[in-house]
Amino acid sequence: MSPSSSNNYSYEYFNVTFPQPYIAHVEINRPEKLNAFIEIMWQNLAKIFTQLSHDPSVRAILLTGAGDRAFTAGLDVHAAAQSGPLADAEKEGASQDVARRALYNLRHITDFQACITAIEKCEKPTLTLLHSLAYGLALDIALSTDLRITTTSTRFAIKEVDIGLAADIGTLTRLPKAVGSMAWVKDVALTGRVFGAEEALRVGLVSEVVQGGKEEGVRRALEVLGVVAQKSPVAVRGTKEILDYGWGRTVEEGLRYTAVWNSAMIQTQDIKDALLSGIQKRKPTFEKL
Amino acid sequence: MSPSSSNNYSYEYFNVTFPQPYIAHVEINRPEKLNAFIEIMWQNLAKIFTQLSHDPSVRAILLTGAGDRAFTAGLDVHAAAQSGPLADAEKEGASQDVARRALYNLRHITDFQACITAIEKCEKPTLTLLHSLAYGLALDIALSTDLRITTTSTRFAIKEVDIGLAADIGTLTRLPKAVGSMAWVKDVALTGRVFGAEEALRVGLVSEVVQGGKEEGVRRALEVLGVVAQKSPVAVRGTKEILDYGWGRTVEEGLRYTAVWNSAMIQTQDIKDALLSGIQKRKPTFEKL
Amino acid sequence: MSPSSSNNYSYEYFNVTFPQPYIAHVEINRPEKLNAFIEIMWQNLAKIFTQLSHDPSVRAILLTGAGDRAFTAGLDVHAAAQSGPLADAEKEGASQDVARRALYNLRHITDFQACITAIEKCEKPTLTLLHSLAYGLALDIALSTDLRITTTSTRFAIKEVDIGLAADIGTLTRLPKAVGSMAWVKDVALTGRVFGAEEALRVGLVSEVVQGGKEEGVRRALEVLGVVAQKSPVAVRGTKEILDYGWGRTVEEGLRYTAVWNSAMIQTQDIKDALLSGIQKRKPTFEKL
Amino acid sequence: MSPSSSNNYSYEYFNVTFPQPYIAHVEINRPEKLNAFIEIMWQNLAKIFTQLSHDPSVRAILLTGAGDRAFTAGLDVHAAAQSGPLADAEKEGASQDVARRALYNLRHITDFQACITAIEKCEKPTLTLLHSLAYGLALDIALSTDLRITTTSTRFAIKEVDIGLAADIGTLTRLPKAVGSMAWVKDVALTGRVFGAEEALRVGLVSEVVQGGKEEGVRRALEVLGVVAQKSPVAVRGTKEILDYGWGRTVEEGLRYTAVWNSAMIQTQDIKDALLSGIQKRKPTFEKL
Amino acid sequence: MSPSSSNNYSYEYFNVTFPQPYIAHVEINRPEKLNAFIEIMWQNLAKIFTQLSHDPSVRAILLTGAGDRAFTAGLDVHAAAQSGPLADAEKEGASQDVARRALYNLRHITDFQACITAIEKCEKPTLTLLHSLAYGLALDIALSTDLRITTTSTRFAIKEVDIGLAADIGTLTRLPKAVGSMAWVKDVALTGRVFGAEEALRVGLVSEVVQGGKEEGVRRALEVLGVVAQKSPVAVRGTKEILDYGWGRTVEEGLRYTAVWNSAMIQTQDIKDALLSGIQKRKPTFEKL
Amino acid sequence: MSPSSSNNYSYEYFNVTFPQPYIAHVEINRPEKLNAFIEIMWQNLAKIFTQLSHDPSVRAILLTGAGDRAFTAGLDVHAAAQSGPLADAEKEGASQDVARRALYNLRHITDFQACITAIEKCEKPTLTLLHSLAYGLALDIALSTDLRITTTSTRFAIKEVDIGLAADIGTLTRLPKAVGSMAWVKDVALTGRVFGAEEALRVGLVSEVVQGGKEEGVRRALEVLGVVAQKSPVAVRGTKEILDYGWGRTVEEGLRYTAVWNSAMIQTQDIKDALLSGIQKRKPTFEKL
Repeated sequence: MSPSSSNNYSYEYFNVTFPQPYIAHVEINRPEKLNAFIEIMWQNLAKIFTQLSHDPSVRAILLTGAGDRAFTAGLDVHAAAQSGPLADAEKEGASQDVARRALYNLRHITDFQACITAIEKCEKPTLTLLHSLAYGLALDIALSTDLRITTTSTRFAIKEVDIGLAADIGTLTRLPKAVGSMAWVKDVALTGRVFGAEEALRVGLVSEVVQGGKEEGVRRALEVLGVVAQKSPVAVRGTKEILDYGWGRTVEEGLRYTAVWNSAMIQTQDIKDALLSGIQKRKPTFEKL
Repeated sequence: MSPSSSNNYSYEYFNVTFPQPYIAHVEINRPEKLNAFIEIMWQNLAKIFTQLSHDPSVRAILLTGAGDRAFTAGLDVHAAAQSGPLADAEKEGASQDVARRALYNLRHITDFQACITAIEKCEKPTLTLLHSLAYGLALDIALSTDLRITTTSTRFAIKEVDIGLAADIGTLTRLPKAVGSMAWVKDVALTGRVFGAEEALRVGLVSEVVQGGKEEGVRRALEVLGVVAQKSPVAVRGTKEILDYGWGRTVEEGLRYTAVWNSAMIQTQDIKDALLSGIQKRKPTFEKL
Repeated sequence: MSPSSSNNYSYEYFNVTFPQPYIAHVEINRPEKLNAFIEIMWQNLAKIFTQLSHDPSVRAILLTGAGDRAFTAGLDVHAAAQSGPLADAEKEGASQDVARRALYNLRHITDFQACITAIEKCEKPTLTLLHSLAYGLALDIALSTDLRITTTSTRFAIKEVDIGLAADIGTLTRLPKAVGSMAWVKDVALTGRVFGAEEALRVGLVSEVVQGGKEEGVRRALEVLGVVAQKSPVAVRGTKEILDYGWGRTVEEGLRYTAVWNSAMIQTQDIKDALLSGIQKRKPTFEKL
Repeated sequence: MSPSSSNNYSYEYFNVTFPQPYIAHVEINRPEKLNAFIEIMWQNLAKIFTQLSHDPSVRAILLTGAGDRAFTAGLDVHAAAQSGPLADAEKEGASQDVARRALYNLRHITDFQACITAIEKCEKPTLTLLHSLAYGLALDIALSTDLRITTTSTRFAIKEVDIGLAADIGTLTRLPKAVGSMAWVKDVALTGRVFGAEEALRVGLVSEVVQGGKEEGVRRALEVLGVVAQKSPVAVRGTKEILDYGWGRTVEEGLRYTAVWNSAMIQTQDIKDALLSGIQKRKPTFEKL
Repeated sequence: MSPSSSNNYSYEYFNVTFPQPYIAHVEINRPEKLNAFIEIMWQNLAKIFTQLSHDPSVRAILLTGAGDRAFTAGLDVHAAAQSGPLADAEKEGASQDVARRALYNLRHITDFQACITAIEKCEKPTLTLLHSLAYGLALDIALSTDLRITTTSTRFAIKEVDIGLAADIGTLTRLPKAVGSMAWVKDVALTGRVFGAEEALRVGLVSEVVQGGKEEGVRRALEVLGVVAQKSPVAVRGTKEILDYGWGRTVEEGLRYTAVWNSAMIQTQDIKDALLSGIQKRKPTFEKL
Repeated sequence: MSPSSSNNYSYEYFNVTFPQPYIAHVEINRPEKLNAFIEIMWQNLAKIFTQLSHDPSVRAILLTGAGDRAFTAGLDVHAAAQSGPLADAEKEGASQDVARRALYNLRHITDFQACITAIEKCEKPTLTLLHSLAYGLALDIALSTDLRITTTSTRFAIKEVDIGLAADIGTLTRLPKAVGSMAWVKDVALTGRVFGAEEALRVGLVSEVVQGGKEEGVRRALEVLGVVAQKSPVAVRGTKEILDYGWGRTVEEGLRYTAVWNSAMIQTQDIKDALLSGIQKRKPTFEKL
């Protein structure tokens, strides 16, 4: 029997497939609009990753965009201009009071952020293959996944500044922690300029540039995730948890949390199995998580 | 009428000019001493950036050193040896009590730090063009600006260790956050060795090395700032605010602050104007800030 | 009389020598086991660095592994499988209660972490020369030192994931702060893959790749430490303290701590000596610390 | 037309009524079991407060227990022993692996905590009337509301220690911040002893002891909430937000967040209305929120 | 010669006198308006405390309101309705854009907060005698001083909620840290109700209720400050610094900062003098600070 | 066989006895000097609590002073004036350089703090019975224990200010978190005044005032600890851990740590035993920890 999930992952604007044992592939599927996002899409994205997070048949997740034209062009600005916080309050029959409008916006932004943070909170390791066009929300989303690789021809940009907006769904918060140059972060965030794969690698935004197009990218991404999926799910879960926790906290805080975490985790059978397999020079298999 | 500031920016040891609409150029002006700093200079520097911060005619700021020999050689050690906390307490008629001297020093260091932090707090985006010699205080100052680019021949060094001093005006606090290699930070901070433009780029201290001399550097810097100055001032202000706030805080804290910030900011007319201009394929113009 | 320490540094599995004035060389000495670690070794490592920390004859410390085959291969998994938290509780006659076992583990992990953190807390600057094989614990240890350089042929890996374990002694907490690419950190932490010197340099894990073998590496390392050892010990101590403190704290917190620290430190005679030497174009000498 | 909510608040084990304009009354309704909690109850509690949070007809919320015998006796331990993390893993057919069981528990505790935190996150001010018996979960819940008053005869206890458990749903985290004596907190948390209304008032756990029984308590609670419900909803929302945010953060952090928050909120019409009403000596009315 | 300050402390709306050696008395002086605050007043208040902070003739500061009718009734709402962020933007010719107005407000609130925080940052111990009427801003100000005592008849209230406003100048941030009952804090902040001296003592807002009127209050306040003024200024300065720093930080952070602080301070001559005086049973005198 | 410890607890200046099953009684034993502390005493105190922390025969610890005259009068100032950081550097042959002296002091204070923090880190619940005289260090120590009760006649004071010193061993860091009135904390810290048992109870420094003398106090203390010692050691350990962790951290941080902690702890047999005992109406017994 295949370990692939028998759960239902049918969500509008997304394809979820299981190309390899233990690996899920989530595809943003609105290619005719360059995979641009409307509200239902980020809500569905959150639901998908939340469901995958607890699915014992899944040990690693790949995220791409459908088609060859874009990972995603970001927010669908035409839709955003029609309803929601960027639309005209008057037209919406909403309160004209600035404070009430601000509180409405606060709920909206917080909900939107929570959808993207749901990717970060997914208990399974996640990898974004950046390809083609990766603008605006593309970075908010990619920065919420664990691993990032890109094809050679990807064009990246933090486009929010060009619509009069400071990016508020995660890019400005996570990018300075994810890469190694604050001067570069501010350059791309304040100018909105397009940059390419080699620059993304140089600053550390991605860990690898795959030679070739999207197909090669997917192949390489599945290879990496295939390696991860063979490890102990307990070890993988703990590694992700500790890395994310330590981000933006002091070393002392990080070590203390780690010690408490592992006080339970190292009681796992997986360690005994892994140690024994090491001695016996064979590949261990691990119970589902 | 030109949008350039009609305010008075006449401060000793500095030239403040307005080479392009919305752009201020601050030049450290003590070239005969390699632009080395004496107390009045960091006080004036703070005043200039505080004034520019609230000047509605200014949307971006360039910082350079006068002449071709140095951005700045750092603290004027001859002057520092004469008065202030590095001078001899006895000679100054100050208290000989260690605690009272420490409290005097604490006030002095705190005031000095506040002058440099005034650059960081400037509400407008700032860019340091590093050129020629950039020693000691040069880095404290450059690390308080948003953007950093350099010419090819710049020589950088954290020189404080060579005068028996741990750099206390910002470099040691900001540099580990600004670049991507703690081993490299400690190398240059503990050895005081000189490094060049390519190394500065590799570690992320600068986002770009401009081929050529200072003139080419200034031209390129104005080009970058020119792009920034065309964006919505509300979007630029928010982008800077959120990036700076997130530095050294957790993702959760950063997202929450961002949401509150944007709950008001996305009510701006700028977004409507930018969206409309996008549809109409024309450049938007924005109200002053 | 030589400034080298006359103290006794005789610890099992370690060689401590004084190859140059003010410089100690700590060598992990279990080459027949690829310098793999058993419990007594991390306890001794902590004792050595704690003793060196207060030894006035020491101003800089080099850490290497004995022999040419490994800096260290990491934890001795055979030994770990026999006793301690990774061993079978039953065999040990320990409590079978999960909570009691977790509390036993918590003590053990906390003690182990404290041993490695003792390196970080060493008041003197420390440099790890990574060479040959540098797996698992090799990184926990190296990340607790200030400086990291490598020879060209070093093979690095975060191996813990392969024994079913999230690395809990420091790597996962310190690595994301030490380098400039979270995507890369997660890649090497989740796959356990081997990487080389050039990659280590590119992401900022090391500040330099020394051409040649271990011998050339040691020579270069001593050269770097020789420079550091000539600086004011007060300035070096403060530089290290402030850099470590600022890591993972906000800029405001870092500046405040720095100001208090230096309010006493700049009363040192070393500054006067350094300033005078600068004027007289001679090398200053400084009192021991 | 009544401002009372026309929404449906029909949740098992709870009565939700609207005794006064703008005021909701939530009653825990399992009196035959002393209002002891089973899983569906904390899930419903979260749903109720989340719904009330966004209900524009509601400006203040009262929480009580049905009947005269208990606010709540806490967790239903009989039910907890049958399923969930306190039950026997074997019986449940769950994984016997300690790590996997721990991760299952982690999800469960996190979900449970989130249900109680949903009360804290409710945008409207909340008041718990503590009465009769208030054990265990009673305190976790009450500490998540804003206001706490009690009748004279209430018996309080942190009972978790008596079932071998450190209270993990909020009491141990929130109580030390909510009251003014850490020695007292540890006394009641470590001994599990019963204490009364006067002691609760003395340490600050409640702000008022109402003379009489539950009926008098409800009357007084509605009186207090009636006052709150007449204030500007924008001012009330901000007051709650800023108080909660500042808890456990530094003064600097609190002030900064406050300034950003109010930069939008003081643009409200409510202030103009309130100021004018003050001058005209009449009661202002405010738009719904 | 008297140790009283010979500096000039002439500020509109304030009387600054020196009733005893080393003690300054600052009196809010707008009694005909119940000492209600207009903008120039909080600016002057900040200037006064900043000047006193560095005045070596001053070792302790008393703050009261002029006249018998009010310490202060808080913000002068009539003035606030005419100009500033609570006034009508249109009338002011200010930008109608919500974002620009918010940024204007942000500057204003930040400046206002900084004026009150200047009291907290004053290096000398400060005491507020609360008397008569102490509404709104009265609490923001009193919470920024170190010591708080009250006369029996004082009426206190957090009045901001009644003008549609969440108190943003400090009360909501500092009060939950200053007293021991969060339920009580929320009660008085959300209802705006008036409370008295005994209640203020019970919750810890003040440390003492002086029997009698303002005259008795001032006499007692000077008595307390007289005791403080006889202590070593170095010890007093450090005690205040460490207490304020620890507020809202972890114990670990507090201890580390304390250790660095005292590493310089205990080198003071004051300790030797105090120890010797103790042995000789006489009162020590200390050098000015 | 008695559950009392068979370990050796023989430390100079301390008596350690086991008056009841599972309860240790630590007595400061230098009554002829009012139990005043010299360096060997705080070092021994740390050793005792560290040993008790891991002693499975111990479940609760009482701390008192020998004799009827003092719990402790604090630091032995005569001894402190002879050697250590408060003594004359010259006399000690130590470095006269201010920075080197400061670094020596820093080590000394940090070590001293660590000795007192060892009490706080003790895994077992601790209770200080404050009696007779409790000055200076008495409070540093008592604030590091979990529970504090007092006899009626105890005289308390923060005496450090009277020897020219800001208390740096813990009182100023822990007291503002432990009690509910910052105004009161500053009052007693800045004036050094003596206060009594009723005041200590009112502000929350102690949780109980025992009528009578030291004998009655000990009897009551043992009664309280007897209750604690009967609880599950796993539940007690977790309750203490979570309470201490949450202190000075945000609610979010506290809840997350709690969830991870309990994910292992609720797998304990103690819960099953406690639940069963509850049903069977008998007292549970628990395995040692």
